[in-house]
Amino acid sequence: MGTSTILPDVATEIVIPTCAVVGIFFSLIQWILVSKVKLSVDKPDNKNMFKESLIQEEEQEEGVNDHNVVQKCAEIQNAISEGATSFLFTEYQYVGIFMIAFAVLIFVFLGSVNGFSTSYQQCTYDPTKQCKPALFTAIFSTVSFILGAITSVVSGFLGMKIATYANARTTLEARKGVGKAFIVAFRSGAVMGFLLAANGLLVLFVTINVFKVYYGDDWEGLFEAITGYGLGGSSMALFGRVGGGIYTKAADVGADLVGKVERNIPEDDPRNPAVIADNVGDNVGDIAGMGSDLFGSYAESSCAALVVASISSFGNSHDFTSMMYPLLISSVGILVCLLTTLYATDISEVKTVKEIEPALKNQLIISTFLMTIGIALVSWIAVPYSFTIFNYGVQKEVKNWQLFLCVAVGLWAGLIIGFVTEYYTSNAYSPVQDVADSCRTGAATNVIFGLALGYKSVIIPIFAIAISIFVSFSFAAMYGIAVAALGMLSTIATGLAIDAYGPISDNAGGIAEMAGMSHRIRERTDALDAAGNTTAAIGKGFAIGSAALVSLALFGAFVSRAKITTVDVLTPKVFIGLIVGSMLPYWFSAMTMKSVGKAALKMVEEVRRQFNSIPGLMEGTAKPDYATCVKISTDASIKEMIPPGALVMLTPLIVGIFFGVETLSGVLAGSLVSGVQIAISASNTGGAWDNAKKYIEAGASEHARTLGPKGSDPHKAAVIGDTVGDPLKDTSGPSLNILIKLMAVESLVFAPFFATHGGLLFKIF
Amino acid sequence: MGTSTILPDVATEIVIPTCAVVGIFFSLIQWILVSKVKLSVDKPDNKNMFKESLIQEEEQEEGVNDHNVVQKCAEIQNAISEGATSFLFTEYQYVGIFMIAFAVLIFVFLGSVNGFSTSYQQCTYDPTKQCKPALFTAIFSTVSFILGAITSVVSGFLGMKIATYANARTTLEARKGVGKAFIVAFRSGAVMGFLLAANGLLVLFVTINVFKVYYGDDWEGLFEAITGYGLGGSSMALFGRVGGGIYTKAADVGADLVGKVERNIPEDDPRNPAVIADNVGDNVGDIAGMGSDLFGSYAESSCAALVVASISSFGNSHDFTSMMYPLLISSVGILVCLLTTLYATDISEVKTVKEIEPALKNQLIISTFLMTIGIALVSWIAVPYSFTIFNYGVQKEVKNWQLFLCVAVGLWAGLIIGFVTEYYTSNAYSPVQDVADSCRTGAATNVIFGLALGYKSVIIPIFAIAISIFVSFSFAAMYGIAVAALGMLSTIATGLAIDAYGPISDNAGGIAEMAGMSHRIRERTDALDAAGNTTAAIGKGFAIGSAALVSLALFGAFVSRAKITTVDVLTPKVFIGLIVGSMLPYWFSAMTMKSVGKAALKMVEEVRRQFNSIPGLMEGTAKPDYATCVKISTDASIKEMIPPGALVMLTPLIVGIFFGVETLSGVLAGSLVSGVQIAISASNTGGAWDNAKKYIEAGASEHARTLGPKGSDPHKAAVIGDTVGDPLKDTSGPSLNILIKLMAVESLVFAPFFATHGGLLFKIF
Repeated sequence: MGTSTILPDVATEIVIPTCAVVGIFFSLIQWILVSKVKLSVDKPDNKNMFKESLIQEEEQEEGVNDHNVVQKCAEIQNAISEGATSFLFTEYQYVGIFMIAFAVLIFVFLGSVNGFSTSYQQCTYDPTKQCKPALFTAIFSTVSFILGAITSVVSGFLGMKIATYANARTTLEARKGVGKAFIVAFRSGAVMGFLLAANGLLVLFVTINVFKVYYGDDWEGLFEAITGYGLGGSSMALFGRVGGGIYTKAADVGADLVGKVERNIPEDDPRNPAVIADNVGDNVGDIAGMGSDLFGSYAESSCAALVVASISSFGNSHDFTSMMYPLLISSVGILVCLLTTLYATDISEVKTVKEIEPALKNQLIISTFLMTIGIALVSWIAVPYSFTIFNYGVQKEVKNWQLFLCVAVGLWAGLIIGFVTEYYTSNAYSPVQDVADSCRTGAATNVIFGLALGYKSVIIPIFAIAISIFVSFSFAAMYGIAVAALGMLSTIATGLAIDAYGPISDNAGGIAEMAGMSHRIRERTDALDAAGNTTAAIGKGFAIGSAALVSLALFGAFVSRAKITTVDVLTPKVFIGLIVGSMLPYWFSAMTMKSVGKAALKMVEEVRRQFNSIPGLMEGTAKPDYATCVKISTDASIKEMIPPGALVMLTPLIVGIFFGVETLSGVLAGSLVSGVQIAISASNTGGAWDNAKKYIEAGASEHARTLGPKGSDPHKAAVIGDTVGDPLKDTSGPSLNILIKLMAVESLVFAPFFATHGGLLFKIF
Repeated sequence: MGTSTILPDVATEIVIPTCAVVGIFFSLIQWILVSKVKLSVDKPDNKNMFKESLIQEEEQEEGVNDHNVVQKCAEIQNAISEGATSFLFTEYQYVGIFMIAFAVLIFVFLGSVNGFSTSYQQCTYDPTKQCKPALFTAIFSTVSFILGAITSVVSGFLGMKIATYANARTTLEARKGVGKAFIVAFRSGAVMGFLLAANGLLVLFVTINVFKVYYGDDWEGLFEAITGYGLGGSSMALFGRVGGGIYTKAADVGADLVGKVERNIPEDDPRNPAVIADNVGDNVGDIAGMGSDLFGSYAESSCAALVVASISSFGNSHDFTSMMYPLLISSVGILVCLLTTLYATDISEVKTVKEIEPALKNQLIISTFLMTIGIALVSWIAVPYSFTIFNYGVQKEVKNWQLFLCVAVGLWAGLIIGFVTEYYTSNAYSPVQDVADSCRTGAATNVIFGLALGYKSVIIPIFAIAISIFVSFSFAAMYGIAVAALGMLSTIATGLAIDAYGPISDNAGGIAEMAGMSHRIRERTDALDAAGNTTAAIGKGFAIGSAALVSLALFGAFVSRAKITTVDVLTPKVFIGLIVGSMLPYWFSAMTMKSVGKAALKMVEEVRRQFNSIPGLMEGTAKPDYATCVKISTDASIKEMIPPGALVMLTPLIVGIFFGVETLSGVLAGSLVSGVQIAISASNTGGAWDNAKKYIEAGASEHARTLGPKGSDPHKAAVIGDTVGDPLKDTSGPSLNILIKLMAVESLVFAPFFATHGGLLFKIF
């Protein structure tokens, strides 16, 4: 056992938790560094601040010592943090009910596979051995489901907490210069990134070791039970992404429609009653939702890799180190991201606005290069030179360098997707500038050009995904796909850091506006925010790219667990699944977009009501009622997330039970290949419109100035595009990741049940 | 031979051409009836008109005897007709070059399969027999390709001619009442519908009989050569749809952006220099393009059915009547549509605006009911009680009642798609009214709601298509799918009549406006046009539904001709094809939408230039330069149709040659399941926006009046939605039919070549 790998099993047992703990420790350090920016106004801190400002005289500006501004920022931050916390707690009540109900369902369905018998059964892949009873696997699956769900919820919640902790601090630092503000926002993103990556890894590792006590050497059962972890992570992400997505855009669209369009007041103006809800939304949607989503991808790809590996040659020979290859990759990933983060925070320095985007882009490039070395190392020491993968009855000989290529191709595909996304959504390049230019002829051409841009931006990412699939599939079948997904997600800590940076900067800008800070501060936060739009789009690109690979890996694991050998498009059962599956992303998007629209209309009514009924609101002498707007967004998103959630959760169950596993395979393949396109195009279209607007507002080039300034006709057209893009890029687009992943992992978990009891309709006729 | 069918072969040889000739004769009668509305202003006709107006005193109105109006209408009609003819001739020059080049390609590729050998070869499906040399099949395929192309071009051209002949006549009849105008527009549509259906049938029938002289009893080779007819029809449709689509929307969007938005002059105002180009566009895009598209579907589904049938039991036993089952269905379809048309023109009568939509809907319902009987009859007399289909090595026993069900399920699925489309695009129902209502909060919510509506409208059509596929596939494999497509297209004459009615009415409205006719006339033509928007959407629904079935049938025929037995999604070769195939509709849409945008911007510049540089244009004292605008649209569409055309034509060649038939299968399946969704949602979104605008303009209900009148903020928002929808519904959406069909038929024609010489890349590595 384990003799064929360079790394001994004992070392593996130490390395993985150590890396996880290092990650957690690192994120705490970052948090402490962020907390050094004081938000309270007691004496010693002021003195401190004063000192600091003396030291950095060249960056000093008006307002650094203004107690009122600090006080105001702290208040606004509190309001945002409270709103976000209260929303998440409300959401978690519903999530809790769902979690319990679904846990029961998992137990009943999986337990029923063998009629709740507690007797041992023949193993599927090694019929000479006895495996643990299905009933116990049902229990352990349920437990790992709950663990996955809780880890996901905690990840999202902590991310939101640090983001709302950091936003006002970023604003305050912006007074000292753009570099200072950048560091605060970026560090806070890193706190979230590392916490999530390390936590996810640690919980998974501990769970495997605890489950092993019961399962002993029945690894087949052990890793089947572990798949519940992925399902748990992903099903929470459903609520985070869909609920959070509806929340944030209902508030944003509602605030903009009345504030910017009707009342002609700037974005984030404190007179707008929906402004706090808008800022809360950034935190619950883009931070908590995104965190849950990527955690789900990470958990699922690990589970998919593990379940396929458990029936490989090293699974059969109980080679622990090789078995833990996916977790070792993630462990090395944490160390790599740590070094990468240090480059941004300590080695290089952002001094001007122009350096922000390259700094973030460098993060991607550095982490990808370092990780390539890391993957090579792990592939060399943790897997034997050659091993065998079993996949739907087919054996496949895999060399360790081939496995390295599988992971690396996923990693590099991620980088390519990142670059392409940047090209299509950053206002430094011609695509967004063309969209901005089309605003000359009004909103209609802006919308047409934006949609066309989104469609076009799909091409290269799809080729990148297709090549990764081809390479990894050819070398190591479904195991290759799973580790390719892990490769893309191996730098998740860095990815999340630069992604979370976006909403934090957005909020910082909002707080600057609300606290009435100077135009210059607002310009700086706007520059941070424009880069943030691009990184948010890149983050979404990663999320959808990895979701595509993960779903395919889960699909492969499902197929092998459901004992299907071919999924032939030429059979009617599969083809109708394929075409209906391709339709589901449209159905789902229609629901989420309509939800945003409806919730936004409610918000518009409330905002209008307040402007009309609160005397002195427009003049700034009276305060609006922020809480009612927060409540409208909360209620609407909780209510509206149920139908799309039901569509995702019920489809695999209905199809599996009534039409059977072949049709379900078709549905999974169809929703995957269709959903990934809509998701990419929606998030890039939205990002491009947002930055086209920012391009006109910033007026940084000759061309941009001919379109501006704020309030000009082209700018108004750009605002319309931005508003249309909001639900596309922050609600319907990213929610599709969940659709395709969750249906796949749910199918995987229930595969034995469907294979045994499914396909009722065809059995009857 | 033939003894097992009730209908003797001789009767079949008589029945098919007779029905075709009846169809042509009927369309001539309709044409004569339309031509009775006189456009010239010589004395006798005026007298005639005067008489008529005396008889129908209750409908008489001002202007019936106004020579100037008639004169003006005739002039405008001439301008439109000339513009359309000149565009089509320019287009045909390019098409001609392409046709010759592609004919050479077909000959070389297919001839090379057996190294241009002229010796006889073993038959594929009956190895005991000798079949004709591949070289001769290459020659005959090339000939049938040219025949298909010419028939398609002629169909489109004649459709355009009758449409431009009828539009001014519809305007003039509108003076006498809405019913009169309706009849003229509808009859003209019927001329096109019957000409196209009957022509297509006749040419195909004659070709088969002529080819039979050479092929004798080598039916396998005969019907392989006939597939070229489908390819010819479809490749011309590419130019018609894409070129025509870009033309019509460049003009429309360009005219609206300056006219309605900047200059605040009404739609179709004669002062707008782009107004003639806009009206020409309706004829070349919606009439000629649509005609070519549906002709292509018709030709392809017939070819797909024939090629599969040629290797069935009645193909092997040379049972001519059973073999001609697809053509007999189409023959009966012509008779059924004839009766249905008589119902609209002679039995019932449209008197008020409200009766227009029901009258058109009744056409669909009546033709579907009658056709169901017709199909039952043909299935009873023309096929043996039981026969055998061979499909990728699998034998399938089919009963004649099962075949009946295959055709009927396609027919009824078409009706369901028609109804769903009507529900989502007619302003009589809540979806469009909701979209109109969302204009209250501006253009952004209008766009969001419209997109969501389009996405939602996909659900039921996809289920209808999935059920048809499942039923027909289960009963008769790929032959079932092909005849289901034919079933959907069996009432094509009626479908085209109500579809062509739309652009004719649209043009009639334009002519009324340009000729300065009274408000009341314009209201009538607007009502005709609103119904026309819905029927145009229904027509697009049919086109895409049948395209989906046709492509699947072609795909099946391709697979069987390329000797593939399974298309397994779980192999990397197929999966990458699937995901890249799903991306192609996005790439294609990005191209066509961007093309419209670019061409529209050019048009905007020209229109602005004319308004600024021609003195007295705004005041109506000077005439604009219509010809330059016509030329801009022509040039732009010719130039811009090349890249999307190349994408469609080259993809199967590149994939087939370099990646082989498995990957190509994946590409075909992927583009089919993804393209059908985008096409349906795009055309319904566009239709809904157009009618939401019309709903506000017409102000027929209390609710509509709160949103209007013309020029109000909600109306302006609705105009933006309408403009965004233009390229979606008339260019990118319908062009996707061509994408999915043409790639499939091209693959089918080149299947032997790809199977022999393809997959170079995998052969090398």
